[in-house]
Amino acid sequence: MNKLQIYQQLTDYWNNTMPFNQLLGLEITKFDPQQSEVHFAWQDKLIGNPVQKILQGGVTATALDLVGGVVAAANIIEQHENLTIESVQQHLAKLSTIDMRTDFLRPGRGEHFIATAKIIRGGSKVAVARMELHNEKGEHIAFGTGTYMVG
Amino acid sequence: MNKLQIYQQLTDYWNNTMPFNQLLGLEITKFDPQQSEVHFAWQDKLIGNPVQKILQGGVTATALDLVGGVVAAANIIEQHENLTIESVQQHLAKLSTIDMRTDFLRPGRGEHFIATAKIIRGGSKVAVARMELHNEKGEHIAFGTGTYMVG
Amino acid sequence: MNKLQIYQQLTDYWNNTMPFNQLLGLEITKFDPQQSEVHFAWQDKLIGNPVQKILQGGVTATALDLVGGVVAAANIIEQHENLTIESVQQHLAKLSTIDMRTDFLRPGRGEHFIATAKIIRGGSKVAVARMELHNEKGEHIAFGTGTYMVG
Amino acid sequence: MNKLQIYQQLTDYWNNTMPFNQLLGLEITKFDPQQSEVHFAWQDKLIGNPVQKILQGGVTATALDLVGGVVAAANIIEQHENLTIESVQQHLAKLSTIDMRTDFLRPGRGEHFIATAKIIRGGSKVAVARMELHNEKGEHIAFGTGTYMVG
Repeated sequence: MNKLQIYQQLTDYWNNTMPFNQLLGLEITKFDPQQSEVHFAWQDKLIGNPVQKILQGGVTATALDLVGGVVAAANIIEQHENLTIESVQQHLAKLSTIDMRTDFLRPGRGEHFIATAKIIRGGSKVAVARMELHNEKGEHIAFGTGTYMVG
Repeated sequence: MNKLQIYQQLTDYWNNTMPFNQLLGLEITKFDPQQSEVHFAWQDKLIGNPVQKILQGGVTATALDLVGGVVAAANIIEQHENLTIESVQQHLAKLSTIDMRTDFLRPGRGEHFIATAKIIRGGSKVAVARMELHNEKGEHIAFGTGTYMVG
Repeated sequence: MNKLQIYQQLTDYWNNTMPFNQLLGLEITKFDPQQSEVHFAWQDKLIGNPVQKILQGGVTATALDLVGGVVAAANIIEQHENLTIESVQQHLAKLSTIDMRTDFLRPGRGEHFIATAKIIRGGSKVAVARMELHNEKGEHIAFGTGTYMVG
Repeated sequence: MNKLQIYQQLTDYWNNTMPFNQLLGLEITKFDPQQSEVHFAWQDKLIGNPVQKILQGGVTATALDLVGGVVAAANIIEQHENLTIESVQQHLAKLSTIDMRTDFLRPGRGEHFIATAKIIRGGSKVAVARMELHNEKGEHIAFGTGTYMVG
């Protein structure tokens, strides 16, 4: 398989088999080592504070953690050649979040949200990603910084 | 109202009106300025990775953020006297998370989870809390550090 | 005094009276609410690990914390009018760092280092800044995120 | 060499050869996998703000990063047997800080300061430590959380 095929298969697999992401309506829309993306729509069940009608901070953290994990996964794959489904699974088996910081910049209001992630420190064992959450108007809702185990 | 009554009313109100916390099954069990607590049970919908059957990191972050917010709220109330429902609502209106760090220590496995929080820096404008997540066996799953706007 | 004069006076005052910054050779070169800057030159006394001859991580953290404080200070001043030396001092009296995260991206090697900072969340009580450290070749050495008490 | 000898030799070596730590007067007083310690005395050159006469936040960050690195190093050594000076050097060659969060709890006032560190997440590739800074009166000045590359 070439890498575009692998990214497409992983996107489908992750979108269809991760219960918590499905519960929140998170959808990976770009699985790419340069910049990955996750989209989700407003739903009333994502409300934290019923008075203010804004996203619970945990929704923001979940979307940022997911998109950071996607870009970290894409960078693991980018480092290897001659990949098969089995070797991809093996390479991704150790992927996990070590720590993450979320900075909440504005109340989480909007109809549609876009989380993006880029790698700021690569490596064969640990990768660090920076993530952002914007709404459909381009308002910047949150920043994230995540350190991921990748090997 | 005395403060115990206020804490009890806030517990009931928050547990019954916060959609995202209800979706995840998070329940505030202790609303206290010294140490607050949130409990939740394992549910398959909280799974992040279907192969490993562990909590999505966002579930952990949500529980830690909630319990940190509870202990911050209790500390806001602790600073005031002669409280009414209206004045409590007013005092809590500015409560929000500024930033949070989550440290994932172990895979999120268990049947039941307990999140606890204590204040490490108090103040009239900003409070900082430290949070922990354990499972029913006492295994330590995650640490959190959250900075909250409180006034 | 107009704001440019205030920024210039604060630059001179901070550069000439802060013992630890002088010890490290840190020099504020831009005191500006949009983007502030701090420069410093390599000195052998800034070495952490004598084998690798790289900056101690604490030097990096110090430069990032300083430049974040400068941009936070400039934003405090930006919010007020008809300023005098006395009112500026009063407005800056509460400036302090609440928390800071440093991400070390590359070994701290170089002849000259430039730390820059921008505000990502403003406000009358708390401001959050993002900082970066580069060397003279433009190599990106570290990221920082700092939460500052500003009022 | 047994491990106590190694810890003693590393303590002497690090205390005597790390320029930046010497500049600040930081002294490793306990090199131990359970809890490590660094002490330092007040010196006027460590002042950040000349008006308030408190430690520059970078001094705090430096002490916390150092003591976290010491406990991480002791844990690397703890994992190996039959050690020689050469193999110790080799095992420690990859030790570096990936990221660190510092929480400033109180102004850094005191005559003498004690930084302590414990491991909260061990491993052969990455370790996470929690650090604290107190003064000679036991006042808690800062918390730190550091993620270290250890292999």
